[in-house]
Amino acid sequence: MPVLVMKFGGTSVANLDRIRRAAKRVGVEVAKGYDVIVIVSAMSGKTNELVGWVNETSPLYDAREYDAIVSSGENVTAGLMALTLQEMDVPARSWQGWQVPVRTTSAHSAARIEEIPTDNIVAKFSEGMRVAVVAGFQGVSPEGRITTLGRGGSDTTAVAFAAAFEAERCDIYTDVDGVYTTDPRIASKARKLNKIAFEEMLELASLGAKVLQTRSVELAMRYNVKLRVLSSFEEQSDDAGTLVCSEEEIMESNVVSGIAYSRDEAKMTLISVADRPGIAAAIFGPLSEGGVNVDMIIQNISEEGRTDMTFSCPTDQVMRAEKALEGAKERGEINYHDLVADTDVAKVSAVGIGMRSQSGVAAQMFKTLSDEGVNIKVIATSEIKISVLIDRKYMELAVQALHDAFELDKVA
Amino acid sequence: MPVLVMKFGGTSVANLDRIRRAAKRVGVEVAKGYDVIVIVSAMSGKTNELVGWVNETSPLYDAREYDAIVSSGENVTAGLMALTLQEMDVPARSWQGWQVPVRTTSAHSAARIEEIPTDNIVAKFSEGMRVAVVAGFQGVSPEGRITTLGRGGSDTTAVAFAAAFEAERCDIYTDVDGVYTTDPRIASKARKLNKIAFEEMLELASLGAKVLQTRSVELAMRYNVKLRVLSSFEEQSDDAGTLVCSEEEIMESNVVSGIAYSRDEAKMTLISVADRPGIAAAIFGPLSEGGVNVDMIIQNISEEGRTDMTFSCPTDQVMRAEKALEGAKERGEINYHDLVADTDVAKVSAVGIGMRSQSGVAAQMFKTLSDEGVNIKVIATSEIKISVLIDRKYMELAVQALHDAFELDKVA
Repeated sequence: MPVLVMKFGGTSVANLDRIRRAAKRVGVEVAKGYDVIVIVSAMSGKTNELVGWVNETSPLYDAREYDAIVSSGENVTAGLMALTLQEMDVPARSWQGWQVPVRTTSAHSAARIEEIPTDNIVAKFSEGMRVAVVAGFQGVSPEGRITTLGRGGSDTTAVAFAAAFEAERCDIYTDVDGVYTTDPRIASKARKLNKIAFEEMLELASLGAKVLQTRSVELAMRYNVKLRVLSSFEEQSDDAGTLVCSEEEIMESNVVSGIAYSRDEAKMTLISVADRPGIAAAIFGPLSEGGVNVDMIIQNISEEGRTDMTFSCPTDQVMRAEKALEGAKERGEINYHDLVADTDVAKVSAVGIGMRSQSGVAAQMFKTLSDEGVNIKVIATSEIKISVLIDRKYMELAVQALHDAFELDKVA
Repeated sequence: MPVLVMKFGGTSVANLDRIRRAAKRVGVEVAKGYDVIVIVSAMSGKTNELVGWVNETSPLYDAREYDAIVSSGENVTAGLMALTLQEMDVPARSWQGWQVPVRTTSAHSAARIEEIPTDNIVAKFSEGMRVAVVAGFQGVSPEGRITTLGRGGSDTTAVAFAAAFEAERCDIYTDVDGVYTTDPRIASKARKLNKIAFEEMLELASLGAKVLQTRSVELAMRYNVKLRVLSSFEEQSDDAGTLVCSEEEIMESNVVSGIAYSRDEAKMTLISVADRPGIAAAIFGPLSEGGVNVDMIIQNISEEGRTDMTFSCPTDQVMRAEKALEGAKERGEINYHDLVADTDVAKVSAVGIGMRSQSGVAAQMFKTLSDEGVNIKVIATSEIKISVLIDRKYMELAVQALHDAFELDKVA
């Protein structure tokens, strides 16, 4: 029988009623003829309780013990989900990470899945079991200790199982009903996308549309796992949610698929840097070592051997960036007159795989912003994305204007 | 280095403060030079929360899922205890049942420990680890599924580890400071025993002094594991608590070690039973099949081929006993005029290994009760115990009088 993977996040299994609701959704897919692998998170709030205890006990905790403790939340949900399915006469059992086993690296609290043998679960499917409920977010290290996968780990577990079992699809049930052309709280005309390409989803996810964890999308792209994001709180139709898939499966789409934004960006400018070969490495090396995630970079035209260097980073890393650069200056590695931080900026991006084949997107974006009187401070582009830094007060206006300009409220 | 097993029950690890307190006790033993195996229960209240969820989800639950869910409570405590010890610079790590592995039968929720390989933990001790924190109450079945040991399972885990590792002693930390000559709430002169023999402890435990689970005492007796019961809420001296050990290690003791009682006893009498060979089997067979735990049995002298048969059982099994006997009567297996249940009785017992070698204990017991005007309804004796059924209203009086008569407030 074809295999379907279904993943339910913390709010979808927050209490026994919601677990029952989720189990009914699983029952529908079983009735369609699927063997189902259900990946569950901890009941919402449980992980925080456990993490709180760990932090109070040991601020610099042993990550191996952290993993052993925190993984228990998913185990409880897995057992309860299996029992709920059994009550509905659906043959089901729970699996903890070590029982599958989900083999991971030993990087505790941030482990990577290395292998998921399918034989144990396949054997049970062939004996008539219809649902394997697997505790998400966890695995077992080569040393036989429990590992966790870090943030968004349950999404990653789901995609990895879908890849290992060559599942027809991986459905991620969450508290939103899909991926939108932009944030509906900002642009009322925002429209749910029926399909989106992996590459676009990656750009949107990393830009702030936090529906799916980046890592799980990367994994899905690599193994070509069809991902569907949908709400566990609504009745489901056949075209529910958003399908994240390879671009070959998307027949027609708008040039721009979505407008993303990020509020927490800072623009930093090094004034009058001595311009010499290797200067970029001398600046961005210390930043990287200092744990600063540099996003956009621009360098002005050099005059009389000196230039201005501008970059952006998350607002909460500004102090770290200043410390790293001042250190480099003190050590004589770089030389600049001043370091200016502008924390009142936001990033707005247009994303779409159509950009690859269609020109004029950037021009239209700049004209739209100009018509609205929005000044562009920094521009960065990739193959399928154009990002600009602007004053934060114009962010909502810019998102709305671009959404209109690229006609994202209309289906292609 | 010698190995010590220390077990902390639910109230001893109820919150992070208590876990810290317990960890300090462990630190003291490590400082003395012991390699320590700590067995922990779930934080009190946690198991009930989990059991509540299971019962609400599935009244006739799959015991395999029950075990997978309920065992998570102990896993959390084990991790937190290991972290707390690490914070105190004591090298420690946690072990879940399957990691040791604690191999058990497949009788889920009531599994029996079959084997505890010591090599994994011994290897860690030899690398410098000083404390292995083991989640109590759980193990792993031959099928690789998580099992739990049932009521009192953590005590049993502790004793089994002490046997497997040939520990010098197994210290059970609980919320009482030892085993008393009788219940101090009833007899103010009750005295804590420094030592008690396994056999005595078994009689006292099954009679209602619920300090140690019967099963763990049986296991300790079988493998000659020295058990010490002591309070986790008091400062500890060298003679703290009560040592439960083989009688050879008890040099001198009173003839009677303790007075036990049970409030929830019922006396049932079958009036005028046809007395014939096999009549006892005809009566007690159906009772056993009906799930009635018969304790004492007496049969009157037969007159004209008929006799009265009296037995005792827990009060809450009276209806079950009536149903079983009426069924046997209807099927013509037994014949009696009437069945009379007296639920206003209590059982009082004197227990002591000294009885084996010293006569006159029964006589003194009966005289003492007679002097107080207490009528004895049923008598039963074993090698080291004399039990009587009396009216419940005299129970406290009888316990106090016997405690005085056998001078249990004085050390032998």
